[in-house]
Amino acid sequence: MDFDKIIDRRGTGSVKWDKMEALYGVSPEDGLSMWVADTDFRAPDPVQRALQAMVDHGVYGYGSDEAAYHDAITWWMAERHGWEVDPAHILTSHGLVNAVGLCLDALTARGDGIVLFTPIYHAFARVIRAAGRDLREVELAQDATGLYRLDMDAAEAALTGNEKMLIWCSPHNPGGRVWSRDELEQVAEFARRHDLILISDEIHHDLVFPGHTHIPMTALDDLSDRLIMLTAASKTFNIAGGETGNVIVADDTLRNRIKGRMAALGLSPNIFGMEMIRAAYSPEGAVWVDELVTYLDGNRRLFDRGIAEIPGLRSMALQSTYLAWVDFSGTGMPRMEFTSRVEQGARIAANHGPTFGTGGDSWLRFNLGTPRTRIAEAVSRLQQSFGDLQ
Amino acid sequence: MDFDKIIDRRGTGSVKWDKMEALYGVSPEDGLSMWVADTDFRAPDPVQRALQAMVDHGVYGYGSDEAAYHDAITWWMAERHGWEVDPAHILTSHGLVNAVGLCLDALTARGDGIVLFTPIYHAFARVIRAAGRDLREVELAQDATGLYRLDMDAAEAALTGNEKMLIWCSPHNPGGRVWSRDELEQVAEFARRHDLILISDEIHHDLVFPGHTHIPMTALDDLSDRLIMLTAASKTFNIAGGETGNVIVADDTLRNRIKGRMAALGLSPNIFGMEMIRAAYSPEGAVWVDELVTYLDGNRRLFDRGIAEIPGLRSMALQSTYLAWVDFSGTGMPRMEFTSRVEQGARIAANHGPTFGTGGDSWLRFNLGTPRTRIAEAVSRLQQSFGDLQ
Repeated sequence: MDFDKIIDRRGTGSVKWDKMEALYGVSPEDGLSMWVADTDFRAPDPVQRALQAMVDHGVYGYGSDEAAYHDAITWWMAERHGWEVDPAHILTSHGLVNAVGLCLDALTARGDGIVLFTPIYHAFARVIRAAGRDLREVELAQDATGLYRLDMDAAEAALTGNEKMLIWCSPHNPGGRVWSRDELEQVAEFARRHDLILISDEIHHDLVFPGHTHIPMTALDDLSDRLIMLTAASKTFNIAGGETGNVIVADDTLRNRIKGRMAALGLSPNIFGMEMIRAAYSPEGAVWVDELVTYLDGNRRLFDRGIAEIPGLRSMALQSTYLAWVDFSGTGMPRMEFTSRVEQGARIAANHGPTFGTGGDSWLRFNLGTPRTRIAEAVSRLQQSFGDLQ
Repeated sequence: MDFDKIIDRRGTGSVKWDKMEALYGVSPEDGLSMWVADTDFRAPDPVQRALQAMVDHGVYGYGSDEAAYHDAITWWMAERHGWEVDPAHILTSHGLVNAVGLCLDALTARGDGIVLFTPIYHAFARVIRAAGRDLREVELAQDATGLYRLDMDAAEAALTGNEKMLIWCSPHNPGGRVWSRDELEQVAEFARRHDLILISDEIHHDLVFPGHTHIPMTALDDLSDRLIMLTAASKTFNIAGGETGNVIVADDTLRNRIKGRMAALGLSPNIFGMEMIRAAYSPEGAVWVDELVTYLDGNRRLFDRGIAEIPGLRSMALQSTYLAWVDFSGTGMPRMEFTSRVEQGARIAANHGPTFGTGGDSWLRFNLGTPRTRIAEAVSRLQQSFGDLQ
């Protein structure tokens, strides 16, 4: 796979490229888009072949092969994550933001407290607020090396007594933490003690860098009565536009409540998303992902080296994901200034830290899922835009 | 377009073909599938080209060109239906069953009564029940020629006082009625008098036979404060697997309530559905639909002639849709017997009448959206299976 190949996505309706001028004031003429979390890479060959076969067939009626779809998921989870999934436990949502929305809708009520360890993927808070639930933010701590760590005292202090659910992100976005078993145990214990339903968003589980091992939350004991696993092939294979994700629930009561809401809302998965995922979760897809992770690891190293050379900037050492999380607090600049140096100066669109919740104020998130020449160009532009600090 | 071409859909995951044995006991080996409402035709060239361009690009990230999508819809509705749609009024759902689910969820409460004129598309009752709403069925009458007519006395009598919504199907499925302006006025007046939100499912509006003219419900006065229009390109262009539909709402309050629920549920449309629709709603798509309607009209005539030759069977004269609605009551047979003669005898899978609600007991629905040789074969098999009645 040639991850170096530049594919022009401008004018394709891509949110990442076609909306960056409106949202960030960065022109797609010469701007670098490093915000929305999809990559600029082509999908792997098995996905391409599956879609081509659909187009050659040309009939797009109701239904995709659900058994084959479930087989592919269970094979992937066993093969890549040592996780045995019962196909009967799989519900198919329209992507994982919809999955979170369904969990909130089915399992909590208006005014219930929902716990998030922030900074965290911005869509969680958006959906929690839109659903009229109460957001409980627990700010992550940082250790001496600048990595996110749990602050369980802060977590205890954040609770007011009406909390019903914890939405957890593993590996973590942003920050890229691959949580240790001990950390996962702390989260599990917290969920048990406060009787919280635990939503574990593991969408980045396939994009883990050498030296780190992702542990699925299902590997922990005494959680199955409250655990909901969210997985998707969208980040792994860059097929987010298919809007298809999985809600995997071992507990019958929880699963039936979500299923009931899906039936009442008349939700059915689309055939393109299912076919892409069925094709992607394959031995050939696995080889592609291994190559992708190696490539992303190279991007990350190049980016981090470049950022480390700019006084006052600090990139959190990614253990996973292609989403670099950069702290600008060392520059002493107000947010408007460092943001403007990135957007107007370096002509780069990057996600604004505050959208990730408490703790994100001095940060920007840079998407590294793009050909390496663009990473080099981004580093060079940032070094220039912050050049007076050298 | 060669609608005569037989495309083998078996083994593609097609619900219509791959589930007929499990559900109807009709083997796909030599069975004819005439149930699920998709056709066996290839999508038109503009759809094929749009999907091929997506595959050639190969990057399936977030987002499709929403402005171009809205332009295509507004162009189509103005051009084909004389209906000027404000793009700001369009919400994109995951197909129209989801659209109905969202309307129920956003605009009614548990226990509210929802009115249906039955027999009617079976998914409405399914979603109403799944949402815990109360179903109020109003059976359609038949005139001397056997066509469905409104029975507004029955409608008045069906109400208990807690009704909040009427889900209306225009053109009607099953039965294929293209409602007159006078009939639409009666429905509108009923909705106004009882303060019902009026959901007008017009999914079959493009498939209208010569001599009949579909009138969009928006053409009526004094309805915009309670009217929700549901449209989709899925039946028209055979792209239902894309699971993309439109909820078009002129009233700000109603639209914002639905929008709020969609935000809370984290729903975003998939890029394949949007691109197919954008491409289909075009002058080239219009030519294709005209040819399709002519072809379906031929299928309908062939089928109806054949059915008319079987004593006791009667096909309602379709004014629209490719869904033939056949009454077996004249045979005097119990439902089990005529159904078994169709399924085991003629080896045809057709939808069972009772699933369409009150008034459907003695009926079966046959999907005529298939190459004509199959219609001829179906007629021949039915004549043979009911041959002893000759």
